[in-house]
Amino acid sequence: MTRQIGFIGLGIMGGPMAMNLLKAGYRLVVNSRTKIKAQAVLDAGAVWADSAAQVAENNQIILICVPDTPDVEKVLLGSKGVITTARPGTICVDHSTISPKQTQIMARQLEQKQITLLDAPISGGQIGAIEAKLSIMVGGPADALEKVRPVLQTIGRNIVHCGSSGSGQMTKLANQIMVIHTVMSIAEGLAFAEKAGLNLQTTFDATSSGAASSASLKNLGPKIIAGDMKPAFMVDLQLKDLRLVLECAEEMKQPLPGVALAKQLLTVLQAQGRGGDGTQAMIDVIRGLGRKSTFHFNSGLF
Amino acid sequence: MTRQIGFIGLGIMGGPMAMNLLKAGYRLVVNSRTKIKAQAVLDAGAVWADSAAQVAENNQIILICVPDTPDVEKVLLGSKGVITTARPGTICVDHSTISPKQTQIMARQLEQKQITLLDAPISGGQIGAIEAKLSIMVGGPADALEKVRPVLQTIGRNIVHCGSSGSGQMTKLANQIMVIHTVMSIAEGLAFAEKAGLNLQTTFDATSSGAASSASLKNLGPKIIAGDMKPAFMVDLQLKDLRLVLECAEEMKQPLPGVALAKQLLTVLQAQGRGGDGTQAMIDVIRGLGRKSTFHFNSGLF
Repeated sequence: MTRQIGFIGLGIMGGPMAMNLLKAGYRLVVNSRTKIKAQAVLDAGAVWADSAAQVAENNQIILICVPDTPDVEKVLLGSKGVITTARPGTICVDHSTISPKQTQIMARQLEQKQITLLDAPISGGQIGAIEAKLSIMVGGPADALEKVRPVLQTIGRNIVHCGSSGSGQMTKLANQIMVIHTVMSIAEGLAFAEKAGLNLQTTFDATSSGAASSASLKNLGPKIIAGDMKPAFMVDLQLKDLRLVLECAEEMKQPLPGVALAKQLLTVLQAQGRGGDGTQAMIDVIRGLGRKSTFHFNSGLF
Repeated sequence: MTRQIGFIGLGIMGGPMAMNLLKAGYRLVVNSRTKIKAQAVLDAGAVWADSAAQVAENNQIILICVPDTPDVEKVLLGSKGVITTARPGTICVDHSTISPKQTQIMARQLEQKQITLLDAPISGGQIGAIEAKLSIMVGGPADALEKVRPVLQTIGRNIVHCGSSGSGQMTKLANQIMVIHTVMSIAEGLAFAEKAGLNLQTTFDATSSGAASSASLKNLGPKIIAGDMKPAFMVDLQLKDLRLVLECAEEMKQPLPGVALAKQLLTVLQAQGRGGDGTQAMIDVIRGLGRKSTFHFNSGLF
């Protein structure tokens, strides 16, 4: 297997993933929408290519990590896309979270040129990307996954084959459903505690290791307590994922009332110009729904 | 400190808690609404008392674990209640999950007879009770907590003083808010995955250790996959807790749209006569909202 691979999309996830591949000894040919985002990996030895097509000319494994469905379409099928130059046998691994349906459609188009598309969305956030601890949910032919598994093991550690094309994306959407509910859990739970005049750190200590525990409580709870709304995962991107969830759910005729509610609450943040905040900012929406004063336990609650 | 204590309420939580106290060498005087539930602890050496009043005659530490606010009121303030016989200095530790406001009111009434009420609701489920791994959220005077701490360490391991009277209950309600959201997370996440034709075990493997993880996913996810709706925590009791949550939230003027939705969804189960099922049965409500057929990935999704 070649030790040279292509990498397209060097944002807050793709950047550290590419860096881990370089550290593991892979030679990388990279392309990104804005070249400045590539600087760190170029400094670390990666080679720049001017387009996805140019990446595909000399690489038979191409990893992609871009924001949304149209971005992946442009990278794969655009006029300077992978499809214009890739040789038969090329495997594209798409780490973006995008439409399962469009993934299936693109996979079929690429298949006609003997290019395999694996959908391989990731979970674990920027820290997971930096520490090479991503969960990778893979859809597509199992034999193609086995060919790229050593590469994926360099960037993640829980690599699960979820089924045929699109099923990695669908699994990621199920993941995002659960994530946003756990974000809503801490938004409402901690806003309630705060309103009641409880000490939030004490509430966290009493609840974070029991039945109420979640990755969101453990990772985002301390940020809320510290008043830190910087993004571990941005509201804008979470809303993009929830749009994909609800599009799929509608097509499958599966109502998801909780997700619909969570999306409305996050949209409040977007409307307030806070789409770049972390999803933990949902607590500010819940806070804003309530009366301003808080109760004070030590002077009698009610 | 006395090694003899009173214990009132020997249900699915109180029973194993009392058993752990006996195992640790405490002499127990017990009372329960239905004597048959006391049989196991009586066989293990506990002594029966015919009423809460009789328990209080000879015990200055009394643990209580009953279902709801009126049950605690009856035990403490009823005509055969603790207040009728307890000596000054008695400490009552209420492990039930009940109204924070009524807790404060009762604590004040008992205080007039120099009886201290600690609210000390528990989290961790029946397994936590059996394994003495309960989280205990304590409200009331810190010095009273220190007097009973050795007793509580026999039944739990995360004992947190949350503040003055009622704050243990309020913390428990914040806990229950977060719990029901995580239950809703797996109900919607796994129903979505199932409808999409994904393998639920694979979905669980791909999501349960990442950003979507929660105690509910880890503990109840496998039950859902196995079709096991037996209660780890009953719908009826969860609805009781959510009623308490929304009563407090209303009094504090704090809207909690997610909790309100979750309560409606659980109420569907109660309406169907499934109040004795475990809360994981919420997935059946979400399933029931959707179209009956599922997609099949392997034959193309859409």
